[in-house]
Amino acid sequence: MKKITSLSQDKILQVNKLILERIHSKLPLISEIAKYILSAGGKRLRPILALSSAKLLNYNQSSNQDVYLASAVELIHTATLLHDDVVDNSIKRRNKKTANEVWGNQITILVGDFLFSQAFELMVKTNSLKVLQTLSNASSKISEGEINQLQCKNNPETTTEEYLDIITGKTAELFSAACKSGALIASNNTNQIKALEIYGKQLGIAFQLVDDALDYISETPKLGKSVGDDFKDGKVSLPIIISWKRGTKDEKKFWTRVISNLDQNENDFNKAKELINKYDGIVETYAIAKSYSQNAVDALSIFESCEVKDGLIEVADYTISRIN
Amino acid sequence: MKKITSLSQDKILQVNKLILERIHSKLPLISEIAKYILSAGGKRLRPILALSSAKLLNYNQSSNQDVYLASAVELIHTATLLHDDVVDNSIKRRNKKTANEVWGNQITILVGDFLFSQAFELMVKTNSLKVLQTLSNASSKISEGEINQLQCKNNPETTTEEYLDIITGKTAELFSAACKSGALIASNNTNQIKALEIYGKQLGIAFQLVDDALDYISETPKLGKSVGDDFKDGKVSLPIIISWKRGTKDEKKFWTRVISNLDQNENDFNKAKELINKYDGIVETYAIAKSYSQNAVDALSIFESCEVKDGLIEVADYTISRIN
Repeated sequence: MKKITSLSQDKILQVNKLILERIHSKLPLISEIAKYILSAGGKRLRPILALSSAKLLNYNQSSNQDVYLASAVELIHTATLLHDDVVDNSIKRRNKKTANEVWGNQITILVGDFLFSQAFELMVKTNSLKVLQTLSNASSKISEGEINQLQCKNNPETTTEEYLDIITGKTAELFSAACKSGALIASNNTNQIKALEIYGKQLGIAFQLVDDALDYISETPKLGKSVGDDFKDGKVSLPIIISWKRGTKDEKKFWTRVISNLDQNENDFNKAKELINKYDGIVETYAIAKSYSQNAVDALSIFESCEVKDGLIEVADYTISRIN
Repeated sequence: MKKITSLSQDKILQVNKLILERIHSKLPLISEIAKYILSAGGKRLRPILALSSAKLLNYNQSSNQDVYLASAVELIHTATLLHDDVVDNSIKRRNKKTANEVWGNQITILVGDFLFSQAFELMVKTNSLKVLQTLSNASSKISEGEINQLQCKNNPETTTEEYLDIITGKTAELFSAACKSGALIASNNTNQIKALEIYGKQLGIAFQLVDDALDYISETPKLGKSVGDDFKDGKVSLPIIISWKRGTKDEKKFWTRVISNLDQNENDFNKAKELINKYDGIVETYAIAKSYSQNAVDALSIFESCEVKDGLIEVADYTISRIN
């Protein structure tokens, strides 16, 4: 992501500065926890998307609505991560202990709420009701996606459609809203706004498909979280759905035991990976991710070639390259 | 609260209807949980304050910004209750099992997030950036208040100032923002807006002081939650602060054991009530609540006498009458 990162570098520095200002609270513990998670080295992918979408539509770079917007998007994402890690009982994120692991669930829930409220305060500073509508709607859909995921947990009979619905809600809606909002502050051109909204949605789906596949093939340091976390938690993603659908009666028994009943032995993760490979679970997940990533690139076809457009295409390529 | 309730009855019916529409989700479980908590018979005090503040400043009753605003305020409040009950591990609320007790913590956290996002979507529909600013700022302060409370838990040395800071954040900020926002959609008169903001803040502090005292003197059915919940949880409120400050060395030892160490026997709650009464903990808490309630009434002095003003004065009286 060299191109897109260098194009938005100045603005990203402003985003980081603004976020640090916003998370300052009269209660030092809030600042401490917020700093801990925000400085854990995320790629700032969502704010980069918001900034780049605005830039693609010739947003005046001396204005700073885009910085408010991008910071708000990152804070929504961070609030979501805090609550997710509580809900999933996660121990590791970005190669560091999760906030809930260090400070406990109670305070982590409340700091998540604080960051979410701060995100809304920043959104208000964009002075755009359309941005507020787009991002508050995305927030609702994120929660719906998370709840949907929780309900499908431990159920290997989850369909591909249900799974795509889940990852659209929990991941792609915010990617899409970031791009759309960036477009909204820069332009009134509905076709261009729509194109960036679609780009974000397709990119987000590709991103989450790859993320879920990585849980079965990556190394812990590369992935940031512990490999096999989804498996241990009984979370159902596309590689499992594929293997379940094509599995024999005995293999289905295995999945029921490890995913539905969470009755797992030491060697079960390797067995799961074997079954996933037997039915090309990773290969097919990757192929589907690639097609979503291609949809994202296609959505940009209405724009003239330029550095920012090249950068956005690079993001789509990067998203799927993580699996190789 | 007969007067104020009858004055806003039509609008409150619209608020209830709008909320029911908003909590409808493609996921039936979300609607089920949201309905469960929203239909548990709350007094709709905060939306009534928003509606009445607008009405006092002659808001056009055929418009419906006030209904959007009042519904948003109730949804913020409801989202907060859901997260609070998870954080406090509460079992009962409004004489019913809490959502976390029925459906578990994970889903309750996420439904809280969903309702919070829905609240923001409704706020956007008021088309007022000032309302959005006021309510998003209040939301931040609520989280800060809750975190502050959590940090002071189990610490009987909490000062009166710290305690007032906590209840201002967790309760009075939303009362105040509800009144201020109602005023904002109706008028540009800064003195009147300020007066209603102060009314709400003072009322909210009085309300929470009484609520906290009730935990030591009420009966469970009247209180809705279980009497002694704060005590069992080691939550420090004014009656305890007063008794601690004036207590003997032995009495301080008692408070340290039951509040700091949560090492409680069957008879300790009665012993705590005895010590609170020995030092007039309830009487003084009530007197302070009464003075805040009077401040609230005084803030209304700039308004001509009218039915709505009488209604708002009635709310201030009601707030402290709950203790008798």
